[in-house]
Amino acid sequence: MDTTTPPQTALDRGRAIVAEINPGLEAALSERYDGLLPGFAETLVEFAYGRLYAREGLDLKTRQIATVAALTALGGQTGPQLRVNLEHALAAGATRRELLEVILQMSVYGGMPAAINGINAAMQLFEDQDALTA
Amino acid sequence: MDTTTPPQTALDRGRAIVAEINPGLEAALSERYDGLLPGFAETLVEFAYGRLYAREGLDLKTRQIATVAALTALGGQTGPQLRVNLEHALAAGATRRELLEVILQMSVYGGMPAAINGINAAMQLFEDQDALTA
Amino acid sequence: MDTTTPPQTALDRGRAIVAEINPGLEAALSERYDGLLPGFAETLVEFAYGRLYAREGLDLKTRQIATVAALTALGGQTGPQLRVNLEHALAAGATRRELLEVILQMSVYGGMPAAINGINAAMQLFEDQDALTA
Amino acid sequence: MDTTTPPQTALDRGRAIVAEINPGLEAALSERYDGLLPGFAETLVEFAYGRLYAREGLDLKTRQIATVAALTALGGQTGPQLRVNLEHALAAGATRRELLEVILQMSVYGGMPAAINGINAAMQLFEDQDALTA
Amino acid sequence: MDTTTPPQTALDRGRAIVAEINPGLEAALSERYDGLLPGFAETLVEFAYGRLYAREGLDLKTRQIATVAALTALGGQTGPQLRVNLEHALAAGATRRELLEVILQMSVYGGMPAAINGINAAMQLFEDQDALTA
Amino acid sequence: MDTTTPPQTALDRGRAIVAEINPGLEAALSERYDGLLPGFAETLVEFAYGRLYAREGLDLKTRQIATVAALTALGGQTGPQLRVNLEHALAAGATRRELLEVILQMSVYGGMPAAINGINAAMQLFEDQDALTA
Repeated sequence: MDTTTPPQTALDRGRAIVAEINPGLEAALSERYDGLLPGFAETLVEFAYGRLYAREGLDLKTRQIATVAALTALGGQTGPQLRVNLEHALAAGATRRELLEVILQMSVYGGMPAAINGINAAMQLFEDQDALTA
Repeated sequence: MDTTTPPQTALDRGRAIVAEINPGLEAALSERYDGLLPGFAETLVEFAYGRLYAREGLDLKTRQIATVAALTALGGQTGPQLRVNLEHALAAGATRRELLEVILQMSVYGGMPAAINGINAAMQLFEDQDALTA
Repeated sequence: MDTTTPPQTALDRGRAIVAEINPGLEAALSERYDGLLPGFAETLVEFAYGRLYAREGLDLKTRQIATVAALTALGGQTGPQLRVNLEHALAAGATRRELLEVILQMSVYGGMPAAINGINAAMQLFEDQDALTA
Repeated sequence: MDTTTPPQTALDRGRAIVAEINPGLEAALSERYDGLLPGFAETLVEFAYGRLYAREGLDLKTRQIATVAALTALGGQTGPQLRVNLEHALAAGATRRELLEVILQMSVYGGMPAAINGINAAMQLFEDQDALTA
Repeated sequence: MDTTTPPQTALDRGRAIVAEINPGLEAALSERYDGLLPGFAETLVEFAYGRLYAREGLDLKTRQIATVAALTALGGQTGPQLRVNLEHALAAGATRRELLEVILQMSVYGGMPAAINGINAAMQLFEDQDALTA
Repeated sequence: MDTTTPPQTALDRGRAIVAEINPGLEAALSERYDGLLPGFAETLVEFAYGRLYAREGLDLKTRQIATVAALTALGGQTGPQLRVNLEHALAAGATRRELLEVILQMSVYGGMPAAINGINAAMQLFEDQDALTA
């Protein structure tokens, strides 16, 4: 984010981050949601990535590990988002072991069930990834 | 944790971590809780620090940042623990800015109120720390 | 609720509301649950509908929109209840667009994952409804 | 609840339970809330106590211990209710040690912060009770 | 939002809403937070108000009632935000009775403790408001 | 736990409890998780069973009923753990009716959706158990 000509809007900055970790995200969101909820894809990219992930002060890999931690601890319905963010975290340079470690650690804060379900979600993702490359 | 003679029990490993980031913790917990709940301080040090923070695979600073993220997103009654873990994160090498950044990021996952309350808790801690050293 | 001879008990008032928005609800609950948990259907109708939805002071449509908002923000296991209450909200006069709007708004309070999962649940319901009437 | 002439309504059954564990509860609720929210005190006594605690199938002491467990695990804003239900549990025959034990156990399910905050709430109650009888 | 020349950016649209229900909000947020977290006030106004509350499809009063519902059900640390949004809801045309009704209704979804704590928060706000105008 | 030669370590005490209520648990956890997360099975048995369930001061049956209460109230992703702990509670002497009662009671604290989903989970378990023994 130290370019000499920084992107001008939050939406631009968000698109730059998304291009790095999940290039097709905005188009996929737009196709699925914008018909019923105009502007949804832009809203998410602008806010989550342009206004938050694109900020200076913390590197992207640590940001993604923190997100995995939070989604694990929150548990509940955040399963799909945990999976997507595990992929983003790997794309940002985290190792599988680092992700499993941070998930397990959440047993202190979100309880043992939250951690076990997070571990299961990660194991499923890793299996699916390995099946694709086998 | 790369000593040639590793601590043998989870409790020992937990005590080694606690000695690094919050030396008086076990004694303080024991004095406050063990009379009514025998073994409480040992349980916490053994489980949280000996079985989790002491594990290989993820550095202590990132572990503490992840904990700050999770406690922010969970919100609710975790205020006192958020404050303690902000102190632990600083002791493990995180900067104030890194901690504020990860707290703000939680607005995507735990909602804006959770992030704002976390920012307020961090600001209060920093003010209290600065007042002590002024 | 403007009858000249108002229903006398909370259970009666609850049944009057249920008759408006989901006529078969009590019988369905009774058949499924009352064998193992005697009185369950009555308890739910009396409390939720008789003691709360039947109250004066707020119109039924707004009550149902508020319920959709809360179930979205709570997320987690409330998926089946969100679907039922989306149906109740439509029965009480809310439009699909209004429901999608209130669900999306919950991203500020319950986080983006909660909103996205709520939107998905609503879209699934609308598709199922359209398939039935196609 | 095995009387030969059972109370006829859920509200009556709720009042019978409340008379056992917290005689002034309905009047206090009514005075505080019914002016603004007509019928609130009745709603709570009828639903929580008449429709649930008054049921057969589980003894009152175990019910109250279960409530203490749940309020601890939920944490967050349920502090005032945890305190009231700790008093109800003691009134129903639970010992202080039993209550501390069940609170501590919640660290597995609701996380360590939830358990610690629950223990603190119980310790505060016990101190206040002892101060009154000293 | 029926102006002939609609505000062009999400931030502008957010500022237009905030001007209606809480004119000093952005300046207050900026003064408190932007020193440590540059851009925070803009982020909140752009996302919450510009991207969500400013949307068509649902009137502002119902949006604010829905927010009060969600914050009540979520409970926990959202107390300060519940209070602010009760003020916003009143500014958007909701009555005190409507707000108390929607809060009470949340007992079905977020549990009785969440509803009672929400009612207490509303009563405190109303008392404070009445004290100012007495 | 009144043996004359008490197990020496928390891990041993945990194993003794697990042998009573779910003999194959540690081996199953170890086979599934320890390859990726070394020591996970031991961590869970030592902490949850050795440090908590094995404690004096509250009988195992009441401990398991309290766990069922908490998992119901927490809801969300704890479905698999609720099922396992319903089995543990039955193994510790609780009746099906007692478990259904405590789950229903959670409607006051975790909301009606949490209770209904918990009842559904218990009914599914009972059906599966009956199918095996039919």
